Amino acid sequence: MADAAAETTLTLTPAFNADGLIAAIAQDAASGEVLMLAWMNAEALKLTLETGRVTYWSRSRRALWTKGETSGHTQRLIEARIDCDQDAILLRIEQTGAACHTGARSCFYRTVAADGALTREDTP
Amino acid sequence: MADAAAETTLTLTPAFNADGLIAAIAQDAASGEVLMLAWMNAEALKLTLETGRVTYWSRSRRALWTKGETSGHTQRLIEARIDCDQDAILLRIEQTGAACHTGARSCFYRTVAADGALTREDTP
Repeated sequence: MADAAAETTLTLTPAFNADGLIAAIAQDAASGEVLMLAWMNAEALKLTLETGRVTYWSRSRRALWTKGETSGHTQRLIEARIDCDQDAILLRIEQTGAACHTGARSCFYRTVAADGALTREDTP
Repeated sequence: MADAAAETTLTLTPAFNADGLIAAIAQDAASGEVLMLAWMNAEALKLTLETGRVTYWSRSRRALWTKGETSGHTQRLIEARIDCDQDAILLRIEQTGAACHTGARSCFYRTVAADGALTREDTP
């Protein structure tokens, strides 16, 4: 993990996992709210950076998935940031509508208590 | 992924991956800054929720890793939120010092341009 080259290089060299993916965190660029975690392969990453329309890799459908293509709940990329070891990317975005397929604004709509009890509530 | 039970239950039932892990996003509870992405197994999750001291599973060292144990750069849990399909958790935390082992406040210290060029700068 402590790959010095990955940490200091100024060229994107993603450390894809065994499935060819990196983790992608979508964050509302205006409010700072964390909306979802999804995955990107090399093609999804390239498309996202080049077009500004956030595109993931759907692990269940095994296909590229341009967010909002069917729902209209698109994500426009404002800024992308890669992490130290280049296996995760932070997408600061403008979200139209709900990020979560359940209709919630954020996928993180339940808090977790110490005993594992969940409480549904809007994100702050 | 669209597991209706996981989405609506009010009991924590993490969808651990083949390695027994869920993704954990650490976010500064006060500023909203996303600091890092790491991994938790069942034991790390339990310890974090029960003690409030954020503990991950180190995939490289294959060991529990209580953040800041050696560096002093601890993370105190303010609030945990599980996502819709329960394979990712958002940790809203109070960070002491740097979250990144490189000494950066956040692991996401480089922006990515459309052509893949990286620019080092502080998170906003």
